[in-house]
Amino acid sequence: MDNCIFCKIIKKEIPAEIVYEDKKFLAFLDIRPLAPGHVQVIPKEHFRWVWDVPYIGTYFEVVQKIAKAQQKAFTTELVRSQVYGDEVPHAHVWIWPEGGSGSSKLEENAELLRKQLK
Amino acid sequence: MDNCIFCKIIKKEIPAEIVYEDKKFLAFLDIRPLAPGHVQVIPKEHFRWVWDVPYIGTYFEVVQKIAKAQQKAFTTELVRSQVYGDEVPHAHVWIWPEGGSGSSKLEENAELLRKQLK
Repeated sequence: MDNCIFCKIIKKEIPAEIVYEDKKFLAFLDIRPLAPGHVQVIPKEHFRWVWDVPYIGTYFEVVQKIAKAQQKAFTTELVRSQVYGDEVPHAHVWIWPEGGSGSSKLEENAELLRKQLK
Repeated sequence: MDNCIFCKIIKKEIPAEIVYEDKKFLAFLDIRPLAPGHVQVIPKEHFRWVWDVPYIGTYFEVVQKIAKAQQKAFTTELVRSQVYGDEVPHAHVWIWPEGGSGSSKLEENAELLRKQLK
């Protein structure tokens, strides 16, 4: 969708620290992280709300994959997630490790996650 | 699991305003709601974290079903969700409508949701 910032990240028109990508989904680091390794998981197709995504099961299988990678990469069992959705009008799931390790640099955290997601 | 409050709700040893139940999942109203119609969705099998549930896809198909029922029952498009998980050590997803209608009585909100989930 035109003028959607997440659609622009999907089309690589706006740079992002992408940690996971498949045919249907993209996951990248939030630029204002709640904690090191805070990820946004989005569908490549434009939907307004997470609850609109017809393949929500596959969506959360990807979110789970990220969560398990975060547990290892940032050495904590506690991984939190939020679906709010009023900040950006493109479906997105926030997921972040809590009380774990990690760097203050986005690119270093991205590297830690990519290693686990290989 | 013994001494798990959610396992006791599943076994109907503790009462709850149940709005949805199938073979694998149970959804009931939170007794300290963030908003009218605030639901907890839990797997019947005991898992520590949402991310441990091997059938996470099916899990979020149920969460989506609840979200769509909340949109109708409480007349709002905005339905939020959180996976935190440190309050009760049994996997649970919080889901609630934001800025919608509804009652201050749990049983009335449960009835509104059950109607939509029939």
